[in-house]
Amino acid sequence: MAVGNVPFPELPPVEGVRLGTAMAGIKKPDRRDTVVIELPDTATVAGVFTQNAFCAAPVAVAKAHMERCLSENLVPRYWLINTGNANAGTGEAGMRDALASCAALASHMGVAESQVLPFSTGVIGEPLPMERLLAGLPKAVSSLADSSQAWQHAGEGILTTDTRAKGATVTVAIGDQQVTINGITKGSGMIKPNMATMLGFVVTDAAVEQSLLETLLRETVDRSFNCITVDSDTSTNDACMLAATGSGARIESAEQVAVFRNALQRVMTELAQAIIRDGEGATKFITLQVNDAATRQEALGVAFTVAHSPLVKTALYASDANWGRILAAVGRAPVEAFDVNRVVIDLGDVRLVENGGRAASYTEAAGSAVMAQEEITIRINLGRGEESATVWTSDLSHEYVTINADYRS
Amino acid sequence: MAVGNVPFPELPPVEGVRLGTAMAGIKKPDRRDTVVIELPDTATVAGVFTQNAFCAAPVAVAKAHMERCLSENLVPRYWLINTGNANAGTGEAGMRDALASCAALASHMGVAESQVLPFSTGVIGEPLPMERLLAGLPKAVSSLADSSQAWQHAGEGILTTDTRAKGATVTVAIGDQQVTINGITKGSGMIKPNMATMLGFVVTDAAVEQSLLETLLRETVDRSFNCITVDSDTSTNDACMLAATGSGARIESAEQVAVFRNALQRVMTELAQAIIRDGEGATKFITLQVNDAATRQEALGVAFTVAHSPLVKTALYASDANWGRILAAVGRAPVEAFDVNRVVIDLGDVRLVENGGRAASYTEAAGSAVMAQEEITIRINLGRGEESATVWTSDLSHEYVTINADYRS
Repeated sequence: MAVGNVPFPELPPVEGVRLGTAMAGIKKPDRRDTVVIELPDTATVAGVFTQNAFCAAPVAVAKAHMERCLSENLVPRYWLINTGNANAGTGEAGMRDALASCAALASHMGVAESQVLPFSTGVIGEPLPMERLLAGLPKAVSSLADSSQAWQHAGEGILTTDTRAKGATVTVAIGDQQVTINGITKGSGMIKPNMATMLGFVVTDAAVEQSLLETLLRETVDRSFNCITVDSDTSTNDACMLAATGSGARIESAEQVAVFRNALQRVMTELAQAIIRDGEGATKFITLQVNDAATRQEALGVAFTVAHSPLVKTALYASDANWGRILAAVGRAPVEAFDVNRVVIDLGDVRLVENGGRAASYTEAAGSAVMAQEEITIRINLGRGEESATVWTSDLSHEYVTINADYRS
Repeated sequence: MAVGNVPFPELPPVEGVRLGTAMAGIKKPDRRDTVVIELPDTATVAGVFTQNAFCAAPVAVAKAHMERCLSENLVPRYWLINTGNANAGTGEAGMRDALASCAALASHMGVAESQVLPFSTGVIGEPLPMERLLAGLPKAVSSLADSSQAWQHAGEGILTTDTRAKGATVTVAIGDQQVTINGITKGSGMIKPNMATMLGFVVTDAAVEQSLLETLLRETVDRSFNCITVDSDTSTNDACMLAATGSGARIESAEQVAVFRNALQRVMTELAQAIIRDGEGATKFITLQVNDAATRQEALGVAFTVAHSPLVKTALYASDANWGRILAAVGRAPVEAFDVNRVVIDLGDVRLVENGGRAASYTEAAGSAVMAQEEITIRINLGRGEESATVWTSDLSHEYVTINADYRS
């Protein structure tokens, strides 16, 4: 199940960036499951990773290799991604496997081991099938290309329970030059990113200095991947990477940064929303907008409390305007000295709650008409300050239970 | 659905306590939906109520009436409970209705209005059908009795989506006297009590001074109703009441208090667990035991994070030993400077996780054998200190979605 029909967009080439994909049979035969992304040696690279204390071996290795490259002035030129196995909860053996897969690709391409960053996604706790993965590498390398088909195959090659590949592209003028930003992402369940989503890979041809690139990645992820939730479960493997190849316009002045940040935010938000639209069992795409909070943290607290409520999510699935469940979820959110008489809740353009109870103007017919829609916005005004937050989520359906009760079988 | 087959126990009379039930047709015809519990004027009474900021009108009135009784040396002698309507999110009109229902019963019984405490449970945001409720009162009053049948009918008269009535009784010797503690409770969904469960009513014939009674209620609820969760949603109407009628043994000395607290804890825990066994769509009863935490708060944080994880709950439903999901949930729990290499996780008597990954001794067959059971204990040892917590929860099934996607229709 998924919300709407969103085809994979046509991603234009980004100079110096090539993508290769193979069917290595990591978990199942005849599906793209191994992806190599190549960057030019002019690139700057930034990454954000899961905050889950049980972070997977490839996350630990990717972080260590990033640091090593920075200290030795090397570019992490290869991103090696496999699906079908998360290499998480695999202890020492998992670390050895992640390092060995980097070493294999590095020797193939003639770069240092630390220039390869590994990413894995799939089932947790099974050993990575190294033989198959290593056998697939030459095939992935031989297919390296910069075509839009190569981007689409890479988008497909990182999926797990996703029902479709997810990509986004924006082209924007910086001075008299065009800058392109391409991204692909995957994720459908175990989605409550805390730093980044399951996996996101974004590349631009702009030239962006390292520390600025890191800042831009953090800022835009904070308002995209860090604002989505399917099921409140933060993955062990979350990672979002951003590379700037440097062949295009240089991003330096405040104005250039503003235009570029805006374009990058569009790509990040589109990718993050694509994950929700393809959330496990999703039949609805829900936007939760919390306004007039005392702090952004408070606004996020209210938005996520509502977004995680199984009772709100099942009511959304049923298209039932059971607004009492929204009210009950808001009422248990982490807000100090909460005066609920100031709270105003709107469902689409229908006022649900004011003065501590159901709005006088509310009718069941009006509420039901909004709930019947596939895309629904819930606005919660706290009346406490001027901060706000927007969070995107999906509903909780029979299909969600089916997918997660059957995933390993 | 529900876990196991738990008949309503035979509750013995508690001197001076009578219960009456009526079919008032609050929401549906031909079901017990209005209950009156009468206490003698020798009783002490304590209560704990929901922390949800949107607390329901009857909760606000019950708290105000309790305070008034305390300051005027009156006993809150009548508990008036209706199911089928929560009288929550109903604003000023809801307050008027709650007060009017107290006034009606008070004038019927010849007591002050503040001596009646109202409790409501059911759908949120609909006006309380006062005409039907008031018409039902005389019938409930005329059926007041202390028989075990009266207890069972009262247990039935407070249910909503519950599949069965829930009661518990313990008799214990205090010196040369027998003390009886009887309790009934209801709750199945919107269960993540924060002070008390949806509704719990416990009565003893012991004589317990007011402030001691309040302390005992808080302490025992903290380790029973406050340690259960079905779906992480805290209700607007939670309340747990405890009355000591004073006709039996006096509880004063440290030893008497210890024996009585122990017996009371047994009743509270049995009632709280009964809610989980009858959790919406429950097919499994799960005990989460977190040991060797730095603080009890930390232990509760880990236990509830795992208990709320939809991915853990669907794996339990599927009897799938997908222990990676437990590990991932533990890893995202609110624990400062978390060294996961010290974490040990056992599923029943099977070791799942140690040294940051899957235990060397683990086999899928052993894990699956435990997961196939109807009652499962997950032990998580954090290796950080000496505090612990136990939390009880149910699984997440297709039936849960069905119940909550259909509840209002």
